[in-house]
Amino acid sequence: MKIKKIKKIVKDIFIKNNLSSSDAEISSKAIINAELVGAYGHGLSRLKMYCDRIQKKIINPKPKIKIKKISPSISHIDAKNSIGFVAADIAIKTAIKNAKKTGIGMVAVKNSGHYGLSGYYAEQAVKKNLIAMIYTNAPPAIAPHGALKSLFGTNPICFASPTGSKIPFILDTSISMINRGKIRVAAKNNKKIPKGVALDIFGKPTIDAKKALAGVQLPIAGFRGSGLAWMVDILSGVLTGGNHAGRVKDPFDDFSGPQNIGHLFITFKANLFQKNYNQRIKDNIKTIKKLPKIKGIKEIMYPGENKFNRYRKNLKKEISIPENIRKDLITLISN
Amino acid sequence: MKIKKIKKIVKDIFIKNNLSSSDAEISSKAIINAELVGAYGHGLSRLKMYCDRIQKKIINPKPKIKIKKISPSISHIDAKNSIGFVAADIAIKTAIKNAKKTGIGMVAVKNSGHYGLSGYYAEQAVKKNLIAMIYTNAPPAIAPHGALKSLFGTNPICFASPTGSKIPFILDTSISMINRGKIRVAAKNNKKIPKGVALDIFGKPTIDAKKALAGVQLPIAGFRGSGLAWMVDILSGVLTGGNHAGRVKDPFDDFSGPQNIGHLFITFKANLFQKNYNQRIKDNIKTIKKLPKIKGIKEIMYPGENKFNRYRKNLKKEISIPENIRKDLITLISN
Repeated sequence: MKIKKIKKIVKDIFIKNNLSSSDAEISSKAIINAELVGAYGHGLSRLKMYCDRIQKKIINPKPKIKIKKISPSISHIDAKNSIGFVAADIAIKTAIKNAKKTGIGMVAVKNSGHYGLSGYYAEQAVKKNLIAMIYTNAPPAIAPHGALKSLFGTNPICFASPTGSKIPFILDTSISMINRGKIRVAAKNNKKIPKGVALDIFGKPTIDAKKALAGVQLPIAGFRGSGLAWMVDILSGVLTGGNHAGRVKDPFDDFSGPQNIGHLFITFKANLFQKNYNQRIKDNIKTIKKLPKIKGIKEIMYPGENKFNRYRKNLKKEISIPENIRKDLITLISN
Repeated sequence: MKIKKIKKIVKDIFIKNNLSSSDAEISSKAIINAELVGAYGHGLSRLKMYCDRIQKKIINPKPKIKIKKISPSISHIDAKNSIGFVAADIAIKTAIKNAKKTGIGMVAVKNSGHYGLSGYYAEQAVKKNLIAMIYTNAPPAIAPHGALKSLFGTNPICFASPTGSKIPFILDTSISMINRGKIRVAAKNNKKIPKGVALDIFGKPTIDAKKALAGVQLPIAGFRGSGLAWMVDILSGVLTGGNHAGRVKDPFDDFSGPQNIGHLFITFKANLFQKNYNQRIKDNIKTIKKLPKIKGIKEIMYPGENKFNRYRKNLKKEISIPENIRKDLITLISN
């Protein structure tokens, strides 16, 4: 289906579900972006879930989001159970404004929901020549080191920087060996997942996506990855007033209340300390790209480069929609 | 040897090497702290190296460190090739002051050197009820994902938070499968290193510590760890004005000039958004500690807990000094 057409359908579905036209625009843009960068677990596969949660009144389609100024650099947002996209959009714009004014911006968000890809918001900051660091927690998926039960979310760490070129440096890495979204898509399409990334509910390794969803995902790098996931839970949950310690509800399975996810956005001017920052990072990337390569590797890529290239390529194509998601769309648009 | 006695010896050695009494105090304290927490690779094993670099005039024992105020929250420090401990001590104190005044502090340092453990400085911030994030780069040790040559340092990520108890949460994790300091100690004591943490110069796995030092350390988690190491190189090197892209010299082997390491210190009030932060994090830790445990695990520990307990235990003991380091000390004190 053509990108414009599918975007319009998604926007119309959101409007049907009582989002304002501008909030529907923000949300549909974020979903289509996820499709275009190839992050299908954050794209159309989630649309029905968002609508279900709005129908069940645990996402508020017309939230009165509150922005509290703590200092010229720092703001606190109560998202009032809005759809995550809208909360994150306000948050990154506030963080950008604060950083532009004072050099550094910090925005904490509570009572929010799943907002898709951190990198999508980071990119907005990079376009203003800012560095961005973004943290969000998520429903339990990873067991803390030493524990037999999952508690941390896949808790992504996002870091983004201008590069002096069109393609920003965007590291947006989950602390899980595999993205939960990827397991979900595999489960929906009855596909296997790689070895060594998840355990079933009995603590046994599994390649069955459905068993992995019910079980535990493994953190990267053992206790180090577990520590990083814990850090993200503190920064986005404990600090902000969001849920933490495993209390963020799974948006697909648990309709007993809002998610109350927390996010933290930190932005600062890239040229705070060195006027020629862009030249410096260009040199950094160039030096690294020139290193001798492992056999079979054509080019050393920096984080975000592959995603950007995929985006650019997909922008010229139509979006192919799996049959089950096509059915969701038809139901949602005709409801 | 008694802790007080060995600390006095180290301080005297630094004074002999032209550090001011207060800078010698700062530096000896940091070195003894590393011994007490069991981070021997950052302790006495480095003392001779610091003195060698001072003798060769590539560490300046009497630097005129410059602190430039960028904004009420942000400062830039030119360490003028001081010993890293002294630069880091000024930096964390400045970051604490800025955060106490405005809610958030950010301090970048250039022209610095190896400063030991990031967690040691983070602890100072936590004692003032601040959260701290600290980044520093280091000499080449890890190959970027896809490259056959090491370029990134072990580039630690440090995150610290108050916990409402005496033991702070201090995640201080290198992006390498193993700390370079540990390999160095193993090499000095002719011990083996674990499998799967390093390659020799030909790209072959090795458990020989000396071959590993000459070769390449592996990053945690493949391209994710490589991305995190790259992030640290940008934050501490590209941003600050420090060396980056593999240009930080190995302090033990390369006396051709100063290291010009860069550091970044970010601090902010833990209770910026939630007045009961300490209560919230206490609840967070308590909930996680209550999870069912893997067989053989007595307690789920948070980052920094083991180190703190080790410190407390070692504080009551004497410091045992390996024979080769004892020889170094005798030479240094009688020179």
